Amino acid sequence: MSSAPLGFFDSGVGGLTVVRAVQELLPSEDIIYLGDTARLPYGSKSPETIRQFADEDVRFLLSKEVKAIVVACNTATAHALPTLHSKYRIPIIGVIEPGVEAALSEPSAERVGIIATQGTIRSHAYQHALAQRRTGLVIYGQATPLLVPLIEENWIEHPATKLVLKTYLDPLVEKGIDTLMLACTHYPLLIPVLKELLPGDIRLVDSATTCAEHLKRELTRRELLNPNIGPGILSIHLTDFSEQFGELASHFLKKSTGRIQRAVLG
Amino acid sequence: MSSAPLGFFDSGVGGLTVVRAVQELLPSEDIIYLGDTARLPYGSKSPETIRQFADEDVRFLLSKEVKAIVVACNTATAHALPTLHSKYRIPIIGVIEPGVEAALSEPSAERVGIIATQGTIRSHAYQHALAQRRTGLVIYGQATPLLVPLIEENWIEHPATKLVLKTYLDPLVEKGIDTLMLACTHYPLLIPVLKELLPGDIRLVDSATTCAEHLKRELTRRELLNPNIGPGILSIHLTDFSEQFGELASHFLKKSTGRIQRAVLG
Repeated sequence: MSSAPLGFFDSGVGGLTVVRAVQELLPSEDIIYLGDTARLPYGSKSPETIRQFADEDVRFLLSKEVKAIVVACNTATAHALPTLHSKYRIPIIGVIEPGVEAALSEPSAERVGIIATQGTIRSHAYQHALAQRRTGLVIYGQATPLLVPLIEENWIEHPATKLVLKTYLDPLVEKGIDTLMLACTHYPLLIPVLKELLPGDIRLVDSATTCAEHLKRELTRRELLNPNIGPGILSIHLTDFSEQFGELASHFLKKSTGRIQRAVLG
Repeated sequence: MSSAPLGFFDSGVGGLTVVRAVQELLPSEDIIYLGDTARLPYGSKSPETIRQFADEDVRFLLSKEVKAIVVACNTATAHALPTLHSKYRIPIIGVIEPGVEAALSEPSAERVGIIATQGTIRSHAYQHALAQRRTGLVIYGQATPLLVPLIEENWIEHPATKLVLKTYLDPLVEKGIDTLMLACTHYPLLIPVLKELLPGDIRLVDSATTCAEHLKRELTRRELLNPNIGPGILSIHLTDFSEQFGELASHFLKKSTGRIQRAVLG
């Protein structure tokens, strides 16, 4: 058992969708969340730069003596997770394996679409993880770089967002996908609009819930669960704090964030 | 006279629209361009963070022994120029004064709209500079944060871009503006679409040309013009190089960029 906190990082506040799922499953855990808002987004940047940023994020969390780390960012998971695993001994969990597991939990899934940032799609991390697990899967990756800016503007219901979504999704629908993976921690906020735009028989899959289940299994196996009974504390640290992030963070977390602190990375 | 290079910086490659104008007016000058692509955009970040980034950008350019610096980024000009002026002795020229000068070159301008990033609009730097120069001006600032992502996606002609532009511009048109300031170095690429969407009697103003004229006056006054006759050399340095930046850079520059180098700050 360990009462040390869990560490989470993301380029911004989107990763709080994963925190929310973990809080539901593991309510006693304390959580340190780092959002690298000074350098967001990660999704359009190069693999080397993303690996460097992820490494600095991990070092910040280690300085807070966390017992395990969740990479609550698809782009960072796609480009940095193997390097982080080889460099650090602490358990580090990404969002891709859980997402793939969720997608394939439906045995009839045959044609899988993935929407994500440029960085995630170009990494082929999802495509590779899916193909390794089920032969014969047909996989379509679609980079959807305008979705994060639209979500951050809170234009979720705006006609422009629907037009952008249709432009991105129509080719996937035409290809007959049965499953759509929301491979970016921002995208769960789009689920109501996606349900409206997509044929009802396409399954939407996001990784937040399965990621929380992965984390719980890993903590149980390593005997690292928090023995406390009361609700855990969430501390949010951002490398840049501008007005809109506080509001956006509550949006992703679906409750108040409490005081947000400014983080300085080494 | 000085054959040292001129330094330019921006959060990304949008500032190359200013470089292009300077190359036309001062073709013999060598230019070092720094795009802080690893941390772009600046427009959504806080004043303190923008000032810190701008300071690191200036120090990089000083290490290249530039004779003058152009802050080819509206957000950095809006938040960091006064601090940079007080800290460094080298001539440092921003894009706001030249933009304001261009807007007011028309004596009948009375109702001025400004479109820019959140950071630029919130700084009130344009509003303040305009109001100082002409009493009785009516000024409307409109943050247009989705335009940079749409331009970077090269969706300039896409119906979604027109819908986004209409959402941003209709309120300005209803207020009867006679002048629209494009207060972001990315926006000149939107001029054809803007001309299509806006009533023909609204003047569009961008700062690239007047910024080049400012720079020429300043170099002449300080006897810093380059005495060489042949065409100057442009070296582009980016803190992150991902595939799309090279293509986008040629777009802004309207010609090939030559070899792009990776810059390490700090």
